[in-house]
Amino acid sequence: MKFNKLLENCKIYEAGKPIELVVREYGVKQEDIIKLASNENPYGTSTKVVKKIQELAKNMFMYPDDSMYELKEALGEKFDVNSKNVIIGAGSDQIIEFLIKAKCSENSKILMAKTTFAMYEIYGRQEGCVALKTEDGMHNLEQFEALYKEHNPEMIFLCIPNNPLGECLDKEEVYKFLEKVSSETLIVVDGAYQEYAAYKDPKKRIDPKELITKFPNAVYLGTFSKAYALGGMRVGYGIGDEAIIKTLYKLRPPFNITTLSLAAAIEALKDQEFVNECIKLNFKEMKRYEEYAKKKGFSYIESYTNFITFKFENKYISSDVAQKLLERGIIVRDLKSYSVNAIRITIGREDQNTKVFKVLDEVLDELKK
Amino acid sequence: MKFNKLLENCKIYEAGKPIELVVREYGVKQEDIIKLASNENPYGTSTKVVKKIQELAKNMFMYPDDSMYELKEALGEKFDVNSKNVIIGAGSDQIIEFLIKAKCSENSKILMAKTTFAMYEIYGRQEGCVALKTEDGMHNLEQFEALYKEHNPEMIFLCIPNNPLGECLDKEEVYKFLEKVSSETLIVVDGAYQEYAAYKDPKKRIDPKELITKFPNAVYLGTFSKAYALGGMRVGYGIGDEAIIKTLYKLRPPFNITTLSLAAAIEALKDQEFVNECIKLNFKEMKRYEEYAKKKGFSYIESYTNFITFKFENKYISSDVAQKLLERGIIVRDLKSYSVNAIRITIGREDQNTKVFKVLDEVLDELKK
Repeated sequence: MKFNKLLENCKIYEAGKPIELVVREYGVKQEDIIKLASNENPYGTSTKVVKKIQELAKNMFMYPDDSMYELKEALGEKFDVNSKNVIIGAGSDQIIEFLIKAKCSENSKILMAKTTFAMYEIYGRQEGCVALKTEDGMHNLEQFEALYKEHNPEMIFLCIPNNPLGECLDKEEVYKFLEKVSSETLIVVDGAYQEYAAYKDPKKRIDPKELITKFPNAVYLGTFSKAYALGGMRVGYGIGDEAIIKTLYKLRPPFNITTLSLAAAIEALKDQEFVNECIKLNFKEMKRYEEYAKKKGFSYIESYTNFITFKFENKYISSDVAQKLLERGIIVRDLKSYSVNAIRITIGREDQNTKVFKVLDEVLDELKK
Repeated sequence: MKFNKLLENCKIYEAGKPIELVVREYGVKQEDIIKLASNENPYGTSTKVVKKIQELAKNMFMYPDDSMYELKEALGEKFDVNSKNVIIGAGSDQIIEFLIKAKCSENSKILMAKTTFAMYEIYGRQEGCVALKTEDGMHNLEQFEALYKEHNPEMIFLCIPNNPLGECLDKEEVYKFLEKVSSETLIVVDGAYQEYAAYKDPKKRIDPKELITKFPNAVYLGTFSKAYALGGMRVGYGIGDEAIIKTLYKLRPPFNITTLSLAAAIEALKDQEFVNECIKLNFKEMKRYEEYAKKKGFSYIESYTNFITFKFENKYISSDVAQKLLERGIIVRDLKSYSVNAIRITIGREDQNTKVFKVLDEVLDELKK
C-alpha cells in the first residue's frame, strides 16, 4: 500500500531503554537496575501526589475534565497569566507537535541547535519541514542569527537549558536575539528543565509572562516530567499569546491527558517543597559527577539540568561504555544517536550515584585494556 | 501571525460535559450528578485493576516501557495475532490520527457514514482531507459502494457498531463490501463497542485476525475506554498487517501511553469476568430504556453498544431536553452537533437509570406545556 511520501523521511524515535527490557535481555534483577537514562526525578513522585492518586484510582473509568479548568487555573496562578494563555499537552512534546503542525507545511524551515531535543526535528519531518541546524552542538546565538537571516525560517527552537547537553543561555542574551526576529516567526522556548537552571543561576531564569509579553510570537513550554516527578504521566504545558493558544486548540485531540495525570499534575503543583528539595539534592549530587570526571581526566559540560554529559573525546567510545554499564544494570543515554561521543547520565540519588561511580570505574578499567 | 491554511477548516471538538463543569455552572452537588454522556462503563473500573494501580502509583515518576512489550503480547494472545500486528494509542483516537496522517495528504478523500464518530472528519480536516458522507445517517453499504466507485477515496471508515447512533452491520455484509474495494484503499474498522455487539448478536462479531488476513488493507481498532472501563486512561489499539503497523510507528510519539495506563490495560485484560458481567447488565438495563421510549411514544435506534439514541422527531427539541436534564444534574449527549434531533444516553446502573426515567418524566412533561 502507498503511504504519504513525507513518511519516507521519518524514522522511529528510540526512547531510553526501559528497566523491563534490561531484565528481559540481560537477566539483571529488577531491583538491581539503576535507570539514569531518561532524566526522571530519582527521588520518586511526591508522597502527597501518590496518596492522592491512590484515592482517585477508582475514577479511571471516567474521562477527564476536558476543559482542564483546575489545572489551567493553577498554572495561570503560578505564572501570573490568564488560563486562556495556557494549553495542556501529553507531555510538552505534544505542544511541540501542535506548534509545528499549526505553523508549518511542506518545506517550511525550522531552526535549532545542532545537538538538541530530537523531537523538534522528528515532528518537523512529519510535516515535511527542513531542519536548519547550527554548526556548534550547543546553542550559539551568533550562528542562530546568521541562519535566521539567511533562511528566514518559520520556527526557531531554543532549548533553555538544552537537552541532551545541559548548557543554558542567559535570559538577557535570549531577549537580545529575539528582538532581531520577525513577529511572523514562531519562537519556541522549551523550558523543560527551567526549574533546575533557575535554581542554579537566576540569570538563566525565563519568566513565561515576561517572555510572551515582550515577544507575543514566543511560546514557553514547561513540563511535569522532570522536577515535578511525573515523567510517566505525560503532562506538559504551553504558555503563549491567546491567539496562538486558540489556534493550537484546533489541533488538540479531546482527552489528551488521562484522568489520573490531570489530578496528579494539580496535586504536584501544591507540593513545591518537594520539588525544591529534589532540585537542591540534584545539584549537591551533581558535584560528585563533576569531581568524578575530573578525577578520570575526561571533560563534562557544565549542566543546568538534572543530568550531566560526559565527553569521552578519543579516550573511550561512548557506545562501549553505555553497553558495558547496561550489562551491569546501569542504564545511561549514549549520545551516539546525536553524533556525539558522550554519555548523558541523569543525576541519581546518593546511593545510586555511589554505585554508578563504582561500576563506571570497573567499566573504564576494562575498556582501557 | 499566519498559520497553516488547513487550520481554517478545523473546528475545536466539543467533548461531553464533565461533572466538574455541571458543579461549577449549575451548582448541582457532585454526588447528585449522573453522567451518561460519554459512554463510560457505569460500573466503574474493575476493583482488581484499581488495586493494581494503587500499588503502582509510586511509579508515576518513571516513563513507561515504550516498547509496550507486555501489553502488546497480551493483546497478541487475546486476538491470536503477532505483537508486530499491534500498535497502542492514547485511545483508539490516536490510531485514527496515525492512519489518516500515514495515508492521506491535502485533498485526499475519506469515506464514512453521515452520522458517525466525529474524530474521523476532525483528524481528516487537519490533513486537508475531504470527507465523503453517505446520505443516510446510519451505515448503508449500498451508499458506501456508490460513493466508493464514484470517488475512489484513500480511506473508508466503518464504525461497527456505530457511535453515536448504535446500529451495527453484520460481519458478512461488511466482508462482501470489502471484497469490492481496492487493496490500495485503507479500511478502518472501528470496533470500539465490538464487545457489546458480539455479546448481543454473534453475527456482528468481527474477528481482527480474520479481518486482516482476508483484507490486509484493513486495520481493526479496539479500545479500553468502554467495556474495559478505562475511559480516563486513554488506551486503544490498532491491529493490522505488519507493513501498515510499521508505518504507523513512524508517527507514534514516544511514551504516548502513561505508566499507569499501560499497567491498567494489562491488568484489565486479565479480568474478563468483570467485563462480561458489565456487558450482561448493560443489555438488561437497556431493555428498560427501550420500554421507556415505547411508553413515551418516541422511537429509538436498536443499539449494539452501551448507549441508546432516543429520536424526538417533531415531538421535542433534543437541545431542550438535554439542557433541562443538565440543570437537574443528568448529563446526556445532545446529537444536535451531528444535525440529528436526538439524545444519546449511556446505559447507566440500575439506580441511575431509575432516576433518569423519573427526571425525564418531569422534563418531558414540562416541555409539553
